Amino acid sequence: MLETLKEAVLEANLELPKRGLVTYTWGNVSGIDRGENLIVIKPSGVPYEELRLEHLVVLDLNGTKVEGKLNPSSDTMTHLVIYRNYPELGGVVHTHSRWATVWAQACRGIPALGTTHADYFYGEIPCTRKLTNEEINGQYEEQTGNVIIETFKDKNPVCVPGVLVSNHGPFSWGKDPQEAVHNAVVLEEVAMMAYHAFSLKPDLKQIDKTLLDRHFLRKHGSKAYYGQS
Amino acid sequence: MLETLKEAVLEANLELPKRGLVTYTWGNVSGIDRGENLIVIKPSGVPYEELRLEHLVVLDLNGTKVEGKLNPSSDTMTHLVIYRNYPELGGVVHTHSRWATVWAQACRGIPALGTTHADYFYGEIPCTRKLTNEEINGQYEEQTGNVIIETFKDKNPVCVPGVLVSNHGPFSWGKDPQEAVHNAVVLEEVAMMAYHAFSLKPDLKQIDKTLLDRHFLRKHGSKAYYGQS
Amino acid sequence: MLETLKEAVLEANLELPKRGLVTYTWGNVSGIDRGENLIVIKPSGVPYEELRLEHLVVLDLNGTKVEGKLNPSSDTMTHLVIYRNYPELGGVVHTHSRWATVWAQACRGIPALGTTHADYFYGEIPCTRKLTNEEINGQYEEQTGNVIIETFKDKNPVCVPGVLVSNHGPFSWGKDPQEAVHNAVVLEEVAMMAYHAFSLKPDLKQIDKTLLDRHFLRKHGSKAYYGQS
Amino acid sequence: MLETLKEAVLEANLELPKRGLVTYTWGNVSGIDRGENLIVIKPSGVPYEELRLEHLVVLDLNGTKVEGKLNPSSDTMTHLVIYRNYPELGGVVHTHSRWATVWAQACRGIPALGTTHADYFYGEIPCTRKLTNEEINGQYEEQTGNVIIETFKDKNPVCVPGVLVSNHGPFSWGKDPQEAVHNAVVLEEVAMMAYHAFSLKPDLKQIDKTLLDRHFLRKHGSKAYYGQS
Repeated sequence: MLETLKEAVLEANLELPKRGLVTYTWGNVSGIDRGENLIVIKPSGVPYEELRLEHLVVLDLNGTKVEGKLNPSSDTMTHLVIYRNYPELGGVVHTHSRWATVWAQACRGIPALGTTHADYFYGEIPCTRKLTNEEINGQYEEQTGNVIIETFKDKNPVCVPGVLVSNHGPFSWGKDPQEAVHNAVVLEEVAMMAYHAFSLKPDLKQIDKTLLDRHFLRKHGSKAYYGQS
Repeated sequence: MLETLKEAVLEANLELPKRGLVTYTWGNVSGIDRGENLIVIKPSGVPYEELRLEHLVVLDLNGTKVEGKLNPSSDTMTHLVIYRNYPELGGVVHTHSRWATVWAQACRGIPALGTTHADYFYGEIPCTRKLTNEEINGQYEEQTGNVIIETFKDKNPVCVPGVLVSNHGPFSWGKDPQEAVHNAVVLEEVAMMAYHAFSLKPDLKQIDKTLLDRHFLRKHGSKAYYGQS
Repeated sequence: MLETLKEAVLEANLELPKRGLVTYTWGNVSGIDRGENLIVIKPSGVPYEELRLEHLVVLDLNGTKVEGKLNPSSDTMTHLVIYRNYPELGGVVHTHSRWATVWAQACRGIPALGTTHADYFYGEIPCTRKLTNEEINGQYEEQTGNVIIETFKDKNPVCVPGVLVSNHGPFSWGKDPQEAVHNAVVLEEVAMMAYHAFSLKPDLKQIDKTLLDRHFLRKHGSKAYYGQS
Repeated sequence: MLETLKEAVLEANLELPKRGLVTYTWGNVSGIDRGENLIVIKPSGVPYEELRLEHLVVLDLNGTKVEGKLNPSSDTMTHLVIYRNYPELGGVVHTHSRWATVWAQACRGIPALGTTHADYFYGEIPCTRKLTNEEINGQYEEQTGNVIIETFKDKNPVCVPGVLVSNHGPFSWGKDPQEAVHNAVVLEEVAMMAYHAFSLKPDLKQIDKTLLDRHFLRKHGSKAYYGQS
């Protein structure tokens, strides 16, 4: 079963440069096998064009390496914190994609300004608070995960499948690595359009709850009627 | 004859990703056979790279499916309202193309700021009012069509072949699916240039009526002299 | 000799979509044979992907067609006015390239803000005044040429090889069609960078004359030392 | 050994158009052999698509040509000044890449606004003062090098591997030509994101020193833990 997961994680990682979300090695995707409680993640600093199945690293939820010769992504601990806290998630992505990173650098969440946003994110895509000096100097990557969890204390990560880490960049997730990447692509599109809509009309407000509901629930939940299922 | 229409609708749909107007499945093109009063439209949620002739859905003008196994685009009712009200139209397109969606999210129409706009759109590309809660909670996609018709009560859709739906994105149309897509491409270009021209000169006004006339009528109507016919 | 010119004009036209300067048929390149006083120009409304040598149109300087079955570009008279007034020019280009058109729509010339500009344009790339209603309703394309000449009454078109036509878009030129296209590409780059530099620092001023001189004269004239000749 | 260096310099030069950093011939990469005190640099004005090993020019640190038929890049003297002052560097790049040039034209340094910046540049990417008329009219390219050195009088070029030359564009460097190009790509990304983050939040401040340290030192120096070594 881990072979299937590894293939999914490899494919999802390769989707990042294909979709224009990464420069050099600035991104990583992981997936989890909830039966085995093992995650598969991209190794640190390996170029996408050279990435092969055998480079992927398998870890348990404490971060102990179970398989693989290479060091896992330096952001691994952030992924692990997300998996530990949200058992409903099967894949996590981190990138420095441009427009999402612009919002993260400005330390601002992205409000829902249109139906594109509402189709995928049920409300604002939040931006975390800044990490404290203690958090940065301590277990930095783990604290990055913790501040994401803190940001979602009143939010459902399945309904808002992404976040901006202040001064850093986006993380997104989904039921599997492919959906996590899909949400990373959407986040980037939404960030681009929200940036420019704000610039065109600086006092723009979030769309009405009714429209947000209509679009999110048209695609998600028991009353969804978008698509073929 | 529907085979020819299906081929035209398929080709027009595939033109959307080729022209950079869609991400994932965020767009749909339809065409109508006015003799049979049947429309052909993209199925809902099918990726463009997998789209084949046999996936297209045939419907009558009430939205009753006549042929096809898949669900039609979730925006089908909006297309139908447009066809019912404008017998001169043969194709309709909806996308979330970036620059047009930026204007739609800002709830602003795009004034004619240059001859590129005037060559295709005889005046402002309007933005609809927001839908009411009742409209959103009711037959939402049909009401989206209705608010487009309301927006065009004093406009000729042949002279202004596109609209922005508030908080949502653009619809465009034409005498056939190809022309509808052509106008979607133009709308996106015009939206990009208008955004930046406004940013460079915030008090910019629409071009003079004389220039608007000259360019629109150079390409349209009995005195047109652009092109080879 | 016209065969060589036709090949140069065809190649220069095909360079426009390759360089991302045109959407659909929104551009045209011409070249002139100064011995024969004949110009070769793109036909009106013919898609670039279908453009062949035999489609090109040959005209004398009065605009009388000498060879070719198709109608010449609707902008032909503007090209002719430029050739008649500037015997030193051998090629002319018109596009609606995005960033240059943004400035044209804002009716603003592009000041020299950096050495990229200074390497090719010896000072501001001017924007014409708006045409009067009489000019628009009269011989519009010829008047467009006339207003370009008026704009250059104190400028040398060889030193400033391009212009923005107010509310419309850029024209550029050179000693042959290839150089004219080269200058169209540079104009677009310069327009993009000037737009953003202004946005970053709204009170930005033109670079000092000394730097303008140094860069322009490093590439042009008898003391040039850039390149291999 | 110079053959290896030439191949590295050729490959690094070809990387520039591949990464979208240059239009036409607006860029150049050099490398140095510190044993021989010889540099290899791109010839002036040769298109990248025609560039071959035999076109590269070999010079000593005074700028005297040792090998090669063509003229070296017109910016050669700037490269030489950088090599003479910073013995730790092995490659230098100059481009007119868009976003970096936007900042250079606005005469503003790029503050560290996020971790992407901090991963590569240990603080602000500075912009030089403007050159004086005397400097421009004198040994201009050498003075450009001198003003870069002046700008770095309190900075370590290994920790901040790039600079913006006022009204001109970026230079970057590294331990070899490949790393110099890598830093040019990063500089461009960082410039794009900083531009937009500032536009979204004009009073944005540089990230805290703690976060800057954490990210820079995660990738550089004896305590680095990013990647595989």
